[in-house]
Amino acid sequence: MNPRTGTEPTRRQLLMRIGVAAGSAAMYQAMTRLGHAAGTDFAGSPSLSGARPGTTVLVLGAGLAGMLAAYELRRAGYGVRVLEYQSRSGGRNFSLRGGDTLTELGGATQHVKFAAGNYINPGPWRIPYHHQGLLHYCKLFGVQLEPFIEVNHNALLHSSVAFGGQPQRYREVQADFTGYTAELLAKAINQNKLDQPIGDDEKHDLLAAMRGWGLLGRDYGYRSGNLASLHRGFARDQGGGPDGAPVPAALFGRAELMKSGLWEWLSFNMSYDFQTTMFQPVGGMDMIGKGFAKQVNDLVTHNVKVTRIAQDGNGVTVTYEDNSHGGAVTEAKADWCVCTIPLSVLSQIDVQAGGPMKAAIQAVPYASSVKIGLEFKRRFWEQDEQIYGGISFTDQPISQISYPSTSYFADTPAVLLGGYMFGAAAYAFAGMTPEQRVEEALRQGSVLHRQYRQEFSNGVGVAWSRMPWTLGCCATWSEETRKAHYAALTAIDGRLVLAGEHASYVGCWQEGAILSSVSAITRLHQRAVGAA
Amino acid sequence: MNPRTGTEPTRRQLLMRIGVAAGSAAMYQAMTRLGHAAGTDFAGSPSLSGARPGTTVLVLGAGLAGMLAAYELRRAGYGVRVLEYQSRSGGRNFSLRGGDTLTELGGATQHVKFAAGNYINPGPWRIPYHHQGLLHYCKLFGVQLEPFIEVNHNALLHSSVAFGGQPQRYREVQADFTGYTAELLAKAINQNKLDQPIGDDEKHDLLAAMRGWGLLGRDYGYRSGNLASLHRGFARDQGGGPDGAPVPAALFGRAELMKSGLWEWLSFNMSYDFQTTMFQPVGGMDMIGKGFAKQVNDLVTHNVKVTRIAQDGNGVTVTYEDNSHGGAVTEAKADWCVCTIPLSVLSQIDVQAGGPMKAAIQAVPYASSVKIGLEFKRRFWEQDEQIYGGISFTDQPISQISYPSTSYFADTPAVLLGGYMFGAAAYAFAGMTPEQRVEEALRQGSVLHRQYRQEFSNGVGVAWSRMPWTLGCCATWSEETRKAHYAALTAIDGRLVLAGEHASYVGCWQEGAILSSVSAITRLHQRAVGAA
Repeated sequence: MNPRTGTEPTRRQLLMRIGVAAGSAAMYQAMTRLGHAAGTDFAGSPSLSGARPGTTVLVLGAGLAGMLAAYELRRAGYGVRVLEYQSRSGGRNFSLRGGDTLTELGGATQHVKFAAGNYINPGPWRIPYHHQGLLHYCKLFGVQLEPFIEVNHNALLHSSVAFGGQPQRYREVQADFTGYTAELLAKAINQNKLDQPIGDDEKHDLLAAMRGWGLLGRDYGYRSGNLASLHRGFARDQGGGPDGAPVPAALFGRAELMKSGLWEWLSFNMSYDFQTTMFQPVGGMDMIGKGFAKQVNDLVTHNVKVTRIAQDGNGVTVTYEDNSHGGAVTEAKADWCVCTIPLSVLSQIDVQAGGPMKAAIQAVPYASSVKIGLEFKRRFWEQDEQIYGGISFTDQPISQISYPSTSYFADTPAVLLGGYMFGAAAYAFAGMTPEQRVEEALRQGSVLHRQYRQEFSNGVGVAWSRMPWTLGCCATWSEETRKAHYAALTAIDGRLVLAGEHASYVGCWQEGAILSSVSAITRLHQRAVGAA
Repeated sequence: MNPRTGTEPTRRQLLMRIGVAAGSAAMYQAMTRLGHAAGTDFAGSPSLSGARPGTTVLVLGAGLAGMLAAYELRRAGYGVRVLEYQSRSGGRNFSLRGGDTLTELGGATQHVKFAAGNYINPGPWRIPYHHQGLLHYCKLFGVQLEPFIEVNHNALLHSSVAFGGQPQRYREVQADFTGYTAELLAKAINQNKLDQPIGDDEKHDLLAAMRGWGLLGRDYGYRSGNLASLHRGFARDQGGGPDGAPVPAALFGRAELMKSGLWEWLSFNMSYDFQTTMFQPVGGMDMIGKGFAKQVNDLVTHNVKVTRIAQDGNGVTVTYEDNSHGGAVTEAKADWCVCTIPLSVLSQIDVQAGGPMKAAIQAVPYASSVKIGLEFKRRFWEQDEQIYGGISFTDQPISQISYPSTSYFADTPAVLLGGYMFGAAAYAFAGMTPEQRVEEALRQGSVLHRQYRQEFSNGVGVAWSRMPWTLGCCATWSEETRKAHYAALTAIDGRLVLAGEHASYVGCWQEGAILSSVSAITRLHQRAVGAA
């Protein structure tokens, strides 16, 4: 949220408000929508010219922010080197496929057994159309994209305490919520019961709007019939030949629908961040990380653990353990440093910076999230239920089930996202063994899909709080920490500048890494050539 | 609409109601949503067994209904022959590509000049997920599908008489419509001004719903700020680094928004027919026609014009002019006949059938529609405006502009649907020369996209009322004609049964052709084996 607008509720207030259902689903909504809202201000590749010959930059971290910095700074004429903790580039941008292994804090190792071609994206998994920075570099680096389906009107909305615990179709909830809302407002308008004077013209327009939008009858009633079924679907669909007439569906009760809280998902899906058209890379999100790495991997030293970042008026000295060489303590020097190490890790490293930046590094907590990939022998969600891509939501801890937005209609095994949790649910799942996470996702998912147990093949559960290289999934700024620390975190401190999603207003999205990096290197370049 | 439910408004009443704006857009909405509503009842390939050896069926028309009948009847053991007027199979399922020519009634011939790989679908162009019959045969015949984007929140909604004639973003209209509606209803509820007693529990739930769904403030007000911008987007998007804070967008005025009628499109897009996930064939809609043709083309005689359908107790005799042989008058005989010729053409042919079927053939008028394909030198809608697929709507006669749901981000020329009209606008455009249609589409489209003139390359305008083989785009049943004639039209008359979208409740959709054909051949088979 934006600290500029003092009249807005604080993020904490919003979180409390959203907590109508107060469960995992509400937390998911809050984290993904309110914590780090929408849109970016990308204005094209940075144009960095006039670098002084021989100037060097050390980039820490080969995630998207670090690799972008390396790519653009080398292009501008700088001598660049990148140090990366892991044995691969990409950072939180990665995908898991059959044959991969994943070891987490505590030592548990998962061996992924997905069929060939299948994958799960434990980190980022979708790209809003307005994340123009990321889309720009995807195109530049040849990463093919395909539509990611967010809203699926035939997917399920589930509340354990409404409709007898039975999941309902998104389209039915949306149609009836719209219809009842329109009916109530139309009746209030018709009887001149609004609290403010509304002229005859606007009254006429409002009534037309409620009737047309909500598919009301001539008496402004919302009721079962073919009209309502144009939005919610039919009890018996239309057909061909003599017996083709449809049968309209019955409606939900208004009180139960409103009480269910399922309308939250209608609002959630109107979010700027989740509006059409969203994208995903063809073949897995790591195609982006790999596309970036192709440009700069010759600059990257993998398997090194940074232990100290020192600086003086002449440059930076980074101390690291070289894990490709028995952990040998080594120093790297450069004129400047772009550090993209997540704050959760950086806060445990000895950083020579001014008090404000050091305080900022310590101030921002990291969210935990858990993602669970489940492979099934067949696409029962398509074959049995006509759900092609999109997301079903539930108030159970798993929060959601997302169906693959690719290879529709295939007869091969397929992987869905069987849970995506923030907050308490994420910590609870992180406390389980990987096998328990998968088992629990199966148990909860079976409430939405009876086919789960029979069709299940294998699964993987990734707890971000147990990833040693990030210790959480992303930075969670509050209004208060943003006000107190954001300026210091993003300012150039001597010869050091930070970048990554944590140094942006587009937190928890890849776009934040891109824009933060563009901002950081643009300012660093100005400083380096003496212009700022 | 369903004649079973007498309490529903008739289709005509609905058309009049919908005519709030009374223009082309309203007609388009009415034709596509109310005239031939949603959903199908497909239950799998028909299982036809026990055909008597040597029994023959003559199928008239090699569109989807005819080809499906031929495919399934041959599979069941019948001897099948198909007669087709055109030189190709597929019927209304076709695509136009560079190098194609199209000659219409009146003689005007268009030579399509699209770049390689580009196409426009003059007929069907999208497939609802619940059209399971068509999807079934697509899979069976190896037709690859990809998502068709219907709703695009960043596309435009345009009313010539609202907002100074300036197009607005879908997301902005949706956000403010939702917010104002929630605000008005919440205030009426808060002041106990509803016309019915609502208990404290429901009152509480309704208030929570309005506030959460509409993103209202604590006082239930909807106003400009970051909260509203979570739905409508920001005036200045978020960024990275020190200057990344977003600036919220201003709101529309409530009265102007409600008066604009743009909310009609929000309701339209909630339609069951246009809900996610929709599909299109990879490479053009005619991939379906070609997929079907691959199965049965050995049975099809092209270039023949049926002039008479006669029958007696022993079989059918069809007289035709063989245009591959100088129009030689020829007869074909079979035991049974499945006729898929559109009623607009069939009504001009001498058909030997009972009075009720003959009356039914004459009773159903055909809608006209016009589609215009425009090729531009570049994807300015993506590159300049971040519109990836989806549809912009306008109250101008062109009614809509649909952006290609494929090859996103490509640097090559691309074709969009520059107009799709029903009703009066369609007849007006059909009265123009093809060049005038394209010019008019450019003129109107320029109101939405200033780049139109500069980026235009070439175009094509298809008027369905001028297609000699169908004389319109599809059958338009009213409540009254359905009641009077549908049973007779779909009944087996002696040795003749009709099939096609006109013989279904899923009219104007390919699914109607599929389901009608399945129904017709299933019943014909039962009759032929003596079971019915």
